[in-house]
Amino acid sequence: MMKIRFTLLLLACATTAFAQSADSALPGKPAPTNMRSAQFPRILPDNRVMFRIEAPQAQKVQIDLGKVYDLKKDSQGVWTVTTDPVSGGFHYYSLLIDGVAVADPASETFYGMSRMASGIELPFAGRDYYALNDVPHGDIRMKRYYSKVAGAWKRFFLYTPPGYDTSKDRYPVLYIVHGGGEDERGWATQGLTDLILDNLIAARRALPMLVVMVDGNAGELSLEEAYLQQFDRELKQSIIPFVEAQYRVKAGAANRALAGLSLGGIQTLYTGVNSTDLFSYLGVFSSSWILPDQAAMAERQYAYMAANREKINRNLKQFWISQGGKEDIAYQNNQAMLARLKQLGIKYSYSESPGGHTWPVWRHDLYQFAPLLFR
Amino acid sequence: MMKIRFTLLLLACATTAFAQSADSALPGKPAPTNMRSAQFPRILPDNRVMFRIEAPQAQKVQIDLGKVYDLKKDSQGVWTVTTDPVSGGFHYYSLLIDGVAVADPASETFYGMSRMASGIELPFAGRDYYALNDVPHGDIRMKRYYSKVAGAWKRFFLYTPPGYDTSKDRYPVLYIVHGGGEDERGWATQGLTDLILDNLIAARRALPMLVVMVDGNAGELSLEEAYLQQFDRELKQSIIPFVEAQYRVKAGAANRALAGLSLGGIQTLYTGVNSTDLFSYLGVFSSSWILPDQAAMAERQYAYMAANREKINRNLKQFWISQGGKEDIAYQNNQAMLARLKQLGIKYSYSESPGGHTWPVWRHDLYQFAPLLFR
Repeated sequence: MMKIRFTLLLLACATTAFAQSADSALPGKPAPTNMRSAQFPRILPDNRVMFRIEAPQAQKVQIDLGKVYDLKKDSQGVWTVTTDPVSGGFHYYSLLIDGVAVADPASETFYGMSRMASGIELPFAGRDYYALNDVPHGDIRMKRYYSKVAGAWKRFFLYTPPGYDTSKDRYPVLYIVHGGGEDERGWATQGLTDLILDNLIAARRALPMLVVMVDGNAGELSLEEAYLQQFDRELKQSIIPFVEAQYRVKAGAANRALAGLSLGGIQTLYTGVNSTDLFSYLGVFSSSWILPDQAAMAERQYAYMAANREKINRNLKQFWISQGGKEDIAYQNNQAMLARLKQLGIKYSYSESPGGHTWPVWRHDLYQFAPLLFR
Repeated sequence: MMKIRFTLLLLACATTAFAQSADSALPGKPAPTNMRSAQFPRILPDNRVMFRIEAPQAQKVQIDLGKVYDLKKDSQGVWTVTTDPVSGGFHYYSLLIDGVAVADPASETFYGMSRMASGIELPFAGRDYYALNDVPHGDIRMKRYYSKVAGAWKRFFLYTPPGYDTSKDRYPVLYIVHGGGEDERGWATQGLTDLILDNLIAARRALPMLVVMVDGNAGELSLEEAYLQQFDRELKQSIIPFVEAQYRVKAGAANRALAGLSLGGIQTLYTGVNSTDLFSYLGVFSSSWILPDQAAMAERQYAYMAANREKINRNLKQFWISQGGKEDIAYQNNQAMLARLKQLGIKYSYSESPGGHTWPVWRHDLYQFAPLLFR
């Protein structure tokens, strides 16, 4: 009776989906991305991950971590698996119950894959740059604004650096875009933008700046130019004027950067290269024109580059392009683009770090890119 | 091939869990709490809800909306159900696949029931007070702070009213606590605190104020006094000093309010009644001492009230207590408490609005409580 009353009043239903016993004999540690008190998934010292799901009536239970693992059921209806070692940093994953991909109820959720997905954060030696350290911390704000372009209320997330509230200074602004199937939450949660900037600013490796984490979704997801145009209008006609009116921002191209990952990188290419009078810094992470689908758009951009080479090279203080190693799914298309940029005499920087088309790479990209800005 | 490349690059996997066809022949409208482009769940004009889940390999699919509905499978493996009419406002719900309760992949997720749960927002005639109107909007900030009390980094969400950034004014502060199985996100997302305050402030019905949406979780969830003590320390020794140092806040009890729902209401009773030198306004929503489990604590509080009646009545400008009608699970315990308060001569206001132990009631509580503050 106590149990029932307690459960009802506190809305704290014990979920049947994962075992909660805090058995200290269990190997490894609960993932930091787990729900409070969820003992699974657990991370073993070699970064293998143990999953345990209670599902006595299910016929098949799987975990999709890029690689799909079948769990095995015991006589109590508890399914378990231990994965291969998983690389460090943040990875999306799904729980499949009889073929239906859902978020693991033991995990925090993250908007990716066009739905709220599970995510798991794995340790690795080089992760200090986004550790939660005893340094001054900025805020992340969730800001609603009415977009005349979209004819709807939209939202961005805004990082303000430590001291913004009490200072009278104006700050430069990095506008940054997530990937396809993600939204304005991506850089704040999966990306840990605040921690990366807090640490860089505390170490005086990056200048204090605002980071506007925009919603790049501009209608039905598509590779067509109309989709890129719609975001271009949203950014130039809605977001930038709103940010510059509402916050203490330095005006002028020298104080504006634009960057994005994957689809956000294509949006950055499309809007940034054509607008070097607006943005002096461009960051294109794990991205490129997608061939052959976007070949015509790419050719129009190369023609524009050929006709405006000097202006582009003069205006852009950084045209920073990166890939998550050869295993990045954008790698081949990116190589083709770099060859054309060289041929056209367009200056750029190139950075490659291993990890593929994943958030650990994009966090590291931000960590490398932010120190180059507004110098 | 185009499809595969597109899907990979954009991370925009078409989920198999719900049908996405934008068939205009479908009845009703997609719920506003759905993922972008998810056509189900759909809300019919009489607030019945249609669910449709693709799960050809599942044996049993259910929706738990307080009442549990069994879905029926067609020859394509698509499961459907239409519920009874559901009352207006926000409700948690779960998808059960072969008995495992998970978040519906078609829905936004909300931290409740100690996990990320689905939520559905249903229309009703009286919902204008939290509509997204063309009025000045404040920000919600996600703020990390190091708690010496908890020995860990924690987080609160902070509403700053329109004009906070450009004004030099200092503001009064409402500290507000979620229910059990929820966290600091509850009042920001489920509660729509920013919209409720934006609208009240625009109509000059509430004074501009900060609202600090705290994380009430203080160790392992429990009804014991130690749990309430730990939150008491967190609030008094960590949160309030941090807020008063970091933000432009008016000092003094006359400028501090404390409120909470359900378990947060018990935390408000425990900390607030004993600290009327710190808080001049208390809000206890859908809550009360839980009998018999907390009877000893309740008796200690009544004894304190008897000994300090005049001080409490003089210090508290509002001791505002509410219930979500007789159907609220806290109703009986609350009636018992009100009888004791009367007997002891402790002044309070009581408000009852229908809806039970749910977020529509708590949003309405905030809407009624905020205008009473800091007058």
